[in-house]
Amino acid sequence: MTNPILSRLKWLRDAMRRAGVQAYIIPSADPHGSEYPPAYWQQRQWISGFDGSAGTAVVTLDRAALWTDSRYFIAAEAQLRGTSYELMKERVEGTPTIAQWLCRQLKSGDSVGIDERVLTTSEVNALRPCLTSAGIGLNAVDLISSIWQDRPTLPKDPVRIQPLKYAGVSMRDKIAKVRQAIRQQGADCMLVGALDEIAWLLNLRGTDVACNPVFVSFCLVGPHTILYIDRDKLTPEVADYLTGEGVSVKPYEAAYDDISALQGQRLLLPRDINAHISSLVPSQEAVVYAESPIAHLKAVKCEAEIAGFHQAMLRDGVAMVEFLSWLRSAVAAGGQTEISVSDKLESLRTRQPLYRGLSFATIAGYQAHGAIVHYEATPQTDAALKPEGLLLLDSGAQYDDGTTDITRTIALGRPTPLEKQVYTLVLKGHIALSRCKFPQGASGTQLDLAARYDMWQAGYNFGHGTGHGVGSCLCVHEGPHQIRMNYMPAPIQEGMTVTDEPGLYLEGQFGVRIENTLLCVPYKETPFGKFVGFEPLTLCPIDTLPIKRSMLTETETEWLDSYHAHVRAQLLPLISDPDVREWLMAATRPLAQIPEA
Amino acid sequence: MTNPILSRLKWLRDAMRRAGVQAYIIPSADPHGSEYPPAYWQQRQWISGFDGSAGTAVVTLDRAALWTDSRYFIAAEAQLRGTSYELMKERVEGTPTIAQWLCRQLKSGDSVGIDERVLTTSEVNALRPCLTSAGIGLNAVDLISSIWQDRPTLPKDPVRIQPLKYAGVSMRDKIAKVRQAIRQQGADCMLVGALDEIAWLLNLRGTDVACNPVFVSFCLVGPHTILYIDRDKLTPEVADYLTGEGVSVKPYEAAYDDISALQGQRLLLPRDINAHISSLVPSQEAVVYAESPIAHLKAVKCEAEIAGFHQAMLRDGVAMVEFLSWLRSAVAAGGQTEISVSDKLESLRTRQPLYRGLSFATIAGYQAHGAIVHYEATPQTDAALKPEGLLLLDSGAQYDDGTTDITRTIALGRPTPLEKQVYTLVLKGHIALSRCKFPQGASGTQLDLAARYDMWQAGYNFGHGTGHGVGSCLCVHEGPHQIRMNYMPAPIQEGMTVTDEPGLYLEGQFGVRIENTLLCVPYKETPFGKFVGFEPLTLCPIDTLPIKRSMLTETETEWLDSYHAHVRAQLLPLISDPDVREWLMAATRPLAQIPEA
Repeated sequence: MTNPILSRLKWLRDAMRRAGVQAYIIPSADPHGSEYPPAYWQQRQWISGFDGSAGTAVVTLDRAALWTDSRYFIAAEAQLRGTSYELMKERVEGTPTIAQWLCRQLKSGDSVGIDERVLTTSEVNALRPCLTSAGIGLNAVDLISSIWQDRPTLPKDPVRIQPLKYAGVSMRDKIAKVRQAIRQQGADCMLVGALDEIAWLLNLRGTDVACNPVFVSFCLVGPHTILYIDRDKLTPEVADYLTGEGVSVKPYEAAYDDISALQGQRLLLPRDINAHISSLVPSQEAVVYAESPIAHLKAVKCEAEIAGFHQAMLRDGVAMVEFLSWLRSAVAAGGQTEISVSDKLESLRTRQPLYRGLSFATIAGYQAHGAIVHYEATPQTDAALKPEGLLLLDSGAQYDDGTTDITRTIALGRPTPLEKQVYTLVLKGHIALSRCKFPQGASGTQLDLAARYDMWQAGYNFGHGTGHGVGSCLCVHEGPHQIRMNYMPAPIQEGMTVTDEPGLYLEGQFGVRIENTLLCVPYKETPFGKFVGFEPLTLCPIDTLPIKRSMLTETETEWLDSYHAHVRAQLLPLISDPDVREWLMAATRPLAQIPEA
Repeated sequence: MTNPILSRLKWLRDAMRRAGVQAYIIPSADPHGSEYPPAYWQQRQWISGFDGSAGTAVVTLDRAALWTDSRYFIAAEAQLRGTSYELMKERVEGTPTIAQWLCRQLKSGDSVGIDERVLTTSEVNALRPCLTSAGIGLNAVDLISSIWQDRPTLPKDPVRIQPLKYAGVSMRDKIAKVRQAIRQQGADCMLVGALDEIAWLLNLRGTDVACNPVFVSFCLVGPHTILYIDRDKLTPEVADYLTGEGVSVKPYEAAYDDISALQGQRLLLPRDINAHISSLVPSQEAVVYAESPIAHLKAVKCEAEIAGFHQAMLRDGVAMVEFLSWLRSAVAAGGQTEISVSDKLESLRTRQPLYRGLSFATIAGYQAHGAIVHYEATPQTDAALKPEGLLLLDSGAQYDDGTTDITRTIALGRPTPLEKQVYTLVLKGHIALSRCKFPQGASGTQLDLAARYDMWQAGYNFGHGTGHGVGSCLCVHEGPHQIRMNYMPAPIQEGMTVTDEPGLYLEGQFGVRIENTLLCVPYKETPFGKFVGFEPLTLCPIDTLPIKRSMLTETETEWLDSYHAHVRAQLLPLISDPDVREWLMAATRPLAQIPEA
């Protein structure tokens, strides 16, 4: 059987010839810069067969290549086999950029096709100089729509209201704040393109994207607010709510028309707005490109959102504890696989009140699969679990009152010395970041070392970020702040959520990651300024079996004991099953009371 | 007696009225972006009376203000008293930028005067939009020359050759490397403005600036190399050396003429080149603005330079040990002051072979003076030393084979609990950075946390950078890499020198800083990449008296013991005086063998 990707490439190349372009770029994005786009826009997955969350396919008349980052190197290599795609490892020495590669493949006078709706303005601006200097043109053209026969339709899912008791701040107050921020930037109105920003701003939620409670739309905020959305998605209740708050509704595609007709108003466009929007603006002098002020406003959680996070974490913690108390004996009894235990965990979460679904596809990576950072088990790869080795389990859920993201790595049998060393290095990094105190407003780049200092001493490192914001019943990956090695200027401040998820991945052997979601909280004010710190929101024991005790300092052991005492105090009153209670009591004992494996 | 600054301000305002400008900006810089400009260019010191290394004076017809950073807040406040200048604290919330302040002081139609030679292109570009939008003009005009009667002349000091045995790489090879880097940037030639870059490139040294072995010049590197310098500064030997290597010599001011006459060549201009140079370029399209490639080449020391650093540190260490072994009993005997002990230390260094002078003005800050980060004792402030409290001593020297920079904080009597706590927090930070291992190429911003993690836990912080490069018989502050809280993208890699100098400053009480100069050395290569670490170059005991032992981890105590064993092994063979030997033996004992104070 021929790989279907080969046929699709043939259709695309035929379309390229008809359109007179010698290359075509297919990014992962939708017109809203979504990390996880609705199925309708999953063009890159369709054309390449690679289904990771990040990647760009580039096709010429005789070659095809796919760029992705270190999280996906192993997965991409497997999925691209037999597709004729070459894997381009981003941020690895010697890997050309897309523009550099295109300049080598094409000749002066050639043209590159792009669908401007699925690239940001800055992406297009970054491509242009290199191509232009090589005499290569850039043509705005959509070649996928005509060749993708069974393309999914744009979602018609209904939109719901996020109740004020969870959102904490009314749509009216949020819009007022955003208007103020727009004026501070010297503009009159802003086109909001990011779906989670629209959901946050209007206190609405949808189900257009798996795991991400957003809905496809644009929103123009100015003296008057307009929501561009397929009307079929609005229930009478939601339509009334919008009308009552003075928000007009127009069809989704009208956003493009309204931007091209904009007159006499200074427009703020987020830097990551899609390039088609930018190209439609009648006068570039009337545009201010800036970070969307909503990203920062959304990142700082209000009291109701923080209270909701605490409540959601209690329920999520109960499900996790029920799961963990079941896991080792279930594996010993036999018949469990990566997929079966993921399903079990999901079913336990489903029983929790206010549950809306997973916040991302569960990663259950057993042994060597744990070293594939964004592994998702399929029936083809699904590994049988045995009472040995490490299981990396990264999962989370959407509740009405909060979003969860937690990773635990569990020793299914007696851990080896290498597993213990690596696990303990990761744990030390996790604890150092969780304990870190810092002047309010420090960037994630300044804090990242906490998670890596000890593993660097041992010559280990990991390629992904150490932490990201988490939405409130919104996207599990949220900016603008991040904790990572490369520079992320957004300040971290009181009220922000951020994950703490160092990991280590030994290719072909095992992976370890330990992740809590943290809340940035006040610490102390001194003559040296305002200091803040973190408080773990996540409530779930950290496996003590793979800990090499001699590698922990007293302070680290105290942190772990105190975290476990907190988890026990919070969760035990919510659990009635005596076996689960017993397991939780045992798992949260002080480390000194647990014999070392 | 009237403050002389008030008369100077009057003369300047008269000149401003004559020139038709309503404000005048007087920066600290010279046309070469020198941190320490020759006396001729110390206009800001002359017009304001503030003599710190960083600061900008801005004078309007009725107000005067001086911007400086946290290192100088206390010193500037004292020096500006009675001058009518307001102190503007940079990077403190609420402090306006110079442009913001000017926009408030002036009205549309007004003009601001600047001497373009002493501002960088990016400084002028940063000023312009804000002023322009307020309708305020920017006029290139030099108002200081006409009013500064007793202005020092441009230095006529002779230039000397830095021997190849210390420089390690010939001028010819360096020029070849720089030419290659210029071509890689798509340019044909580069105008080098930074004095230490010219000194490094040509293997020449001068004495035009106190403590900085540089000479006033420009250098054009291209197919042909031209040194722009006052011919009187060239001895026949140096003139022959330059001619022999094919370097032409032209008068200093001819650099400006040659740039304005440049035809048919693409010119690379360092981003920090002075704005007058940029304004003279005939065609902006033929200019590439980039980091000077010399900064990076100079920062990575060659083998001979590293060997020279080791030799210089041995001699500097002997002088420091002679000094420290003398200090406590001299203070007990009475009559010592901040200045007298600085002089004593200088006289000990002067006796060392290859000594050329101090690398910066010694900072001897006793008790509350130690909290003034860049304090320099004057006869008016010179404090008498008593057998109590802390003395902060930051000093360094220029030797033919290397430059030193060391800070020790010494307890002259029994330290208080607060002094011990603060001293030990600084020591912990110093050790954590010195021990840090990291992937080659990490930025200083990524490493900075090492020095601050523990002090942040205690609610302490310091406002200055944690580390800077050190030149080889060149400037004691050298880029492009720095370790600090704000973002410094330059990577740190094998062969670079960098200081490790965390501090804590309790205003009105005392200051602590502990500084070694480190060398970045290979650590290990693993499947996770190439890791590097640091090796202390500085050889001098760290005072153990103020250490609160219970605050040190075992690892930290081991680091200190091992550093002290290294210092003893290196220095003891070079010391014959039995008292000094005895002191060194005692000062470098393992911590456990020293009774706690």
